Amino acid sequence: MNNQYVIGYATTKFGELWDLSLYDLVQQVTGALLEKTKLEAGMIDAVFYGNMLGGIVENNLHSGAKLAELLGTHAPVYRIEAACASGGMAFHLASMYLTAHPESTVMVVGAEKMTDVSPAEITKALQSAASGEEQLAGLTFPGLYGMLARVYMDAYNYTEEHLAYAPVKNHFHATRNPSAQFQREVSLEQVLKSPYIASPLKVLDSSPISDGAAAVLITNRESLKNKGKAAKISATEVATDSISIKHRSRLDTLEATVIAAKKAFKKARLTTTDIAVAEVHDCFSIAELLAMEDLGFWEKGEAGARIAAGETRIDHGGPLVVNTSGGLKASGHPVGATGIKQIGELYLQLTGQGGARQVANAAHGLAHNVGGSGGTAVVTILSQS
Amino acid sequence: MNNQYVIGYATTKFGELWDLSLYDLVQQVTGALLEKTKLEAGMIDAVFYGNMLGGIVENNLHSGAKLAELLGTHAPVYRIEAACASGGMAFHLASMYLTAHPESTVMVVGAEKMTDVSPAEITKALQSAASGEEQLAGLTFPGLYGMLARVYMDAYNYTEEHLAYAPVKNHFHATRNPSAQFQREVSLEQVLKSPYIASPLKVLDSSPISDGAAAVLITNRESLKNKGKAAKISATEVATDSISIKHRSRLDTLEATVIAAKKAFKKARLTTTDIAVAEVHDCFSIAELLAMEDLGFWEKGEAGARIAAGETRIDHGGPLVVNTSGGLKASGHPVGATGIKQIGELYLQLTGQGGARQVANAAHGLAHNVGGSGGTAVVTILSQS
Repeated sequence: MNNQYVIGYATTKFGELWDLSLYDLVQQVTGALLEKTKLEAGMIDAVFYGNMLGGIVENNLHSGAKLAELLGTHAPVYRIEAACASGGMAFHLASMYLTAHPESTVMVVGAEKMTDVSPAEITKALQSAASGEEQLAGLTFPGLYGMLARVYMDAYNYTEEHLAYAPVKNHFHATRNPSAQFQREVSLEQVLKSPYIASPLKVLDSSPISDGAAAVLITNRESLKNKGKAAKISATEVATDSISIKHRSRLDTLEATVIAAKKAFKKARLTTTDIAVAEVHDCFSIAELLAMEDLGFWEKGEAGARIAAGETRIDHGGPLVVNTSGGLKASGHPVGATGIKQIGELYLQLTGQGGARQVANAAHGLAHNVGGSGGTAVVTILSQS
Repeated sequence: MNNQYVIGYATTKFGELWDLSLYDLVQQVTGALLEKTKLEAGMIDAVFYGNMLGGIVENNLHSGAKLAELLGTHAPVYRIEAACASGGMAFHLASMYLTAHPESTVMVVGAEKMTDVSPAEITKALQSAASGEEQLAGLTFPGLYGMLARVYMDAYNYTEEHLAYAPVKNHFHATRNPSAQFQREVSLEQVLKSPYIASPLKVLDSSPISDGAAAVLITNRESLKNKGKAAKISATEVATDSISIKHRSRLDTLEATVIAAKKAFKKARLTTTDIAVAEVHDCFSIAELLAMEDLGFWEKGEAGARIAAGETRIDHGGPLVVNTSGGLKASGHPVGATGIKQIGELYLQLTGQGGARQVANAAHGLAHNVGGSGGTAVVTILSQS
């Protein structure tokens, strides 16, 4: 891996964007990114595009060529799908492109349009990230994560209240993120009184259905890096696990996250104590608890108590703030865009562009993007350049 | 690009495989490949998986994790979708992985299951490779390629008979390929008398709906390369074009093919006269004519006459034999598998394993895989190692 940098980030608002199509979102975000970085599409050597549901929801595949059309390029455009890790995976492969191609510049775009179909249709489409047997059994993702939550709570004597502190924190952070879907706080009581979706998980334990797009520019050209604000890519690693949870030996841990994190820290030559900001994959509140332990920040079983104690809130004073963007829960979860938004949030934090949610003196940040119930995990570490 | 080699190939039979699911096919082909190469799944550093339609046809995404489950691995598994170029694109990115990772071994799998839904459903699913406007206009791929055929025939004074020689040749070649879907000859008269699908294209101008899977192993480990038969990867390049044909300046050429081929020949430091065997993307007969010209083998407008003269038949005596596998037309076109089968066919030819369809003294081979109506093209060149 040569020296690689994130040199720009753009995002649309995340939310229910009724008046914008999937490709309106892509066009808006790629245009904004080129404007911010003062680059032209012709200077981009390749594009990686993370999108999960375009095929199922809109009968829309071959989106590499669609992006080529929108950008007016003949350069390679790669569409990457890894369920909810599509964005992180697109970034990971884009970094691989830079490793393989000296002196190049790559755009990474993530986008998803989820509100153009009914709730039942989008729930079924999202189920596509589960195994065939799980789908036949009627398991949706709230059901799958609900089972993980039950196992975790039983193993470490936690209550639903311990889960609820994660969304409370993330909604608080989102009040400081103008692109977030929900820029309002929720109280612990509101989370606990919200209706069950799949016990013990409730509506306010769950990330929403969202539209949105995010994009970053990465390069290994030192000349481009020196033109504006840049963050260094220290590592981006992927691991997989069985798609079906029935094939796993434990359900209180996502092994793909454990493996990807170990690889990433080794590659970056850093440890968990070096990380000042992290964006972790809180598709459901339990997922943030598991992530904190699986990434190695805390011991197994500690997350329930430590998140409840407010250790990772921005008003706690460090040493680690988690999901300054608001996380999937409050920033929104347009699936293909999520992994790119996480990287973009780290870029803002590491370059002092975090605005009201800036974490002071952040030298290193970690992004954690998960596919399905943990069948894929991408862990990326960025550093001040 | 370091020295990279194809060191093994396996394929299922292509055809209407009613008794096998998509993942049965994947399991069959990956098992056969590991057995042939005497490797274990644990020795594979990464897997690239080309599949187009799993999401739409079977609500089946996140197949990277499904393959991880089938192979019992935690290694990265990347699912790549680029319409009918999904297989070629997976191979291209797998080669990029080797460039970025010295001393590694990668499996590339392509698979598609197309016969589990009705003809109307699979036609609509395939339409997903066209732009939204083209879909709204009711254009299917026979319609799109029919328009290209009409433009080409008008420009160079060709008749439907000139198109028909390509499928006649490819069916002839398929009689020598035991994995081909149609191991029987068709006559010129049969092609010309077959029913129109989208004038001037007829049933026997068109590749079929197929099930099948194909897989190759590639490595940059010299020690592994020396263990068995190997072909060298000399180049694999990608270019894109607008997904909609309305945005193109010419319709008698696929510009993405032209650009990808130029890049590939430059990278490989070879010219068209070095190529003894080629697998080109004959989804419709017109596509083979365009490919021969766009790849640079012949001048614009020559292909109708030269294919009719039998120049690229295996019984012609060279210098270039095209689609020894039977091409998409007669070997079958399980879309995600096609690009990998093309590579595999070159591997067999370059290592003297071509059996009844072996082309003598083939030193270099070219594979050409196209997405949609030409929005994506992948051109790969393999050489004797």
